[in-house]
Amino acid sequence: MLIVKKFGGTSVGDQERIMNVARRCAEEYSKGNDVVVVLSAMGKTTDILLKTAREINPKAPKRELDMLMTTGEQTSVALMAIALDSLGIPAVSLNAFQVRMETTSVYGNARLKKIDKERILHELASRKIVIVTGFQGVNRYEDYTTLGRGGSDTTAVALAAALHADACEIYTDVDGVFTADPRIVPGARKLSEITYDEMLDLATCGAGVLHNRSVEMAKKYGVPLVVRSSLNNSEGTIVKEVTSVERMLISGVALDENAARISVMGLKDEPGIAFKLFNLLAKNNVNVDIILQSIGREKTKDISFTVNEEDVENAIRIIEENKERLTFHEVTSNLDVAKVSIVGAGMTSNPGVAAKMFEALYNVGININMISTSEIRITVLVKKKDGEKAMNAIHEAFFGNVD
Amino acid sequence: MLIVKKFGGTSVGDQERIMNVARRCAEEYSKGNDVVVVLSAMGKTTDILLKTAREINPKAPKRELDMLMTTGEQTSVALMAIALDSLGIPAVSLNAFQVRMETTSVYGNARLKKIDKERILHELASRKIVIVTGFQGVNRYEDYTTLGRGGSDTTAVALAAALHADACEIYTDVDGVFTADPRIVPGARKLSEITYDEMLDLATCGAGVLHNRSVEMAKKYGVPLVVRSSLNNSEGTIVKEVTSVERMLISGVALDENAARISVMGLKDEPGIAFKLFNLLAKNNVNVDIILQSIGREKTKDISFTVNEEDVENAIRIIEENKERLTFHEVTSNLDVAKVSIVGAGMTSNPGVAAKMFEALYNVGININMISTSEIRITVLVKKKDGEKAMNAIHEAFFGNVD
Repeated sequence: MLIVKKFGGTSVGDQERIMNVARRCAEEYSKGNDVVVVLSAMGKTTDILLKTAREINPKAPKRELDMLMTTGEQTSVALMAIALDSLGIPAVSLNAFQVRMETTSVYGNARLKKIDKERILHELASRKIVIVTGFQGVNRYEDYTTLGRGGSDTTAVALAAALHADACEIYTDVDGVFTADPRIVPGARKLSEITYDEMLDLATCGAGVLHNRSVEMAKKYGVPLVVRSSLNNSEGTIVKEVTSVERMLISGVALDENAARISVMGLKDEPGIAFKLFNLLAKNNVNVDIILQSIGREKTKDISFTVNEEDVENAIRIIEENKERLTFHEVTSNLDVAKVSIVGAGMTSNPGVAAKMFEALYNVGININMISTSEIRITVLVKKKDGEKAMNAIHEAFFGNVD
Repeated sequence: MLIVKKFGGTSVGDQERIMNVARRCAEEYSKGNDVVVVLSAMGKTTDILLKTAREINPKAPKRELDMLMTTGEQTSVALMAIALDSLGIPAVSLNAFQVRMETTSVYGNARLKKIDKERILHELASRKIVIVTGFQGVNRYEDYTTLGRGGSDTTAVALAAALHADACEIYTDVDGVFTADPRIVPGARKLSEITYDEMLDLATCGAGVLHNRSVEMAKKYGVPLVVRSSLNNSEGTIVKEVTSVERMLISGVALDENAARISVMGLKDEPGIAFKLFNLLAKNNVNVDIILQSIGREKTKDISFTVNEEDVENAIRIIEENKERLTFHEVTSNLDVAKVSIVGAGMTSNPGVAAKMFEALYNVGININMISTSEIRITVLVKKKDGEKAMNAIHEAFFGNVD
């Protein structure tokens, strides 16, 4: 069996934790399995590096930030190889140059294109544990790139896909995927299984356990994912195409407090306006989340959408700069929003789900600012201060109150 | 003009110092010159990384130590590019993979073989300051290697040679090359010029300002070197083939307290014995410094030589393991030695130099343990505790006591 194991920054936060991860990998190796380990930078390393850079230059070039940040994972992988050696396990650490981790050229938010697996297969063939830097890639200019938030998950899934791994295990500091964030909803339950689509919606809605690109990629290549704890041996949550267990109505409730709403009012009501607007934002690397279009006054229309808080300033500037081309009345933003979503493949065949969610919010007196639905997801925007309260109310309505 | 500037770890030890170096490079750039900057890791970074690694595994594999340490220079170069950007100067940082810095495969002590200058020339052509990681290379397995102590000097000289630079400036925390280490000999004077050969002998004898491999390479390719301070604008010391200023009898006095003596006693007196012994040590990467052979008893000979303290254990083990092949009586080591040398092209035509040195030692009651001479160098071994005293006595004899 070939197993890809990914450990996040917390799991390799200090020497002791590195040794723990090494022991865990050694155990897998000693069963006779081939093991590929993907690591993030240790603990807060990336944040510290970014802080130093910004102290020198608040507008540090993104190319150089990537050059700087990639040292973080390289440190982790080298120390892990050193730790495995101390356990008598042959290991080799490899960075993005050494595994030819090709990405698009966008610094800070690149996408993986191709992995040259030759070196990895060669090292596995000589019975070494192969430790690969997560989060980083190399673009066509032979420059380092990084994959954006949670990018190490994507690295792990991409490697699992390229190597046709038998499993891709994502280790975190929680026991698996929960029906809601257990830090906010004390009664949250661990799911034993979840589908790619549900996981994808949960990830996009801020559930934070897995990076959404990694789930997309796992779905595309059929990579069997397991989300489990690096701190204990509990079974974790399996993410796959179709789940076998009897399904609950919904799988989980997610909260994203990092969202902001932008509204473009009084757009000309003619074909292609939405295309122009979102194409413009995409070209400028602004990730747009939920979109809502409504009819405005006097043959105009209003378009609202959500973005990450940190993209608001940039998005507004881009829209303002293109006022003539887009022909709108005004653009406004609202940062006082939280995004609360419920996700579940079960809801397609149960029309009462949305009503049940809205009722839960009504019962605790929370006003809904905006609603958006997909086949397996319902998202509402509420005031930021209401986010956690909304999440708890909805969770109780669907899952009841444990103990 | 194309100028290569190398700054050591102390010069880039914190954000403020990084900004200072950036300003200095920006000044050169603004004169219209092409600038290539070579950097070491910040301050004590390399030591801290090594300490962490050794805490995890005292016998950490050398390949992984190199993988770990190379993050140090990459951090420096990225931060320097970020600092230059804040001054409005276009800059790009490059690591050993990006400039194809090919080395031999020996981890921890590799030698440079070839540099692909295409990328650097391309970046210079677009009027960028190019910042290259010192100390590191890539071997034929596509693995990181490091060049050993002072390796960044070698990187700088190699780049200057490959790019046919007009000057290679080595910045340190002293004002240039002195007649003796000013921290030990208060009356030491700065030299305005020195030859490659003298510099080489000073470096080999532990004067520490420049790495000896870098001087060898500068001599081989005729790279004009300047050693100067990163803290002020004083002129520094020019290192070149022939000096133009009127020469003093000797150029400097050097002290190396890191030496140890190994003696192999009772070797069979037959041809090829010295070859066998030193070939064996070379193959095992033990650097041998001065060698002395004397006639032993009963048709045997004794060979003594000095190595770095850290190589003693290894060297003794290798020799013991080959006792049958080498046929000797016993091997002993002495760590209580300091190496004191005088260096100067002037001494070839002045037969009294050695006598003057020995007299100076006799006058302060220091016993000489071993003597070795070359055309432009005389080295003596004394007890470790006598090292600094010997250096001062010799310096006073040749340069007089300043004030």
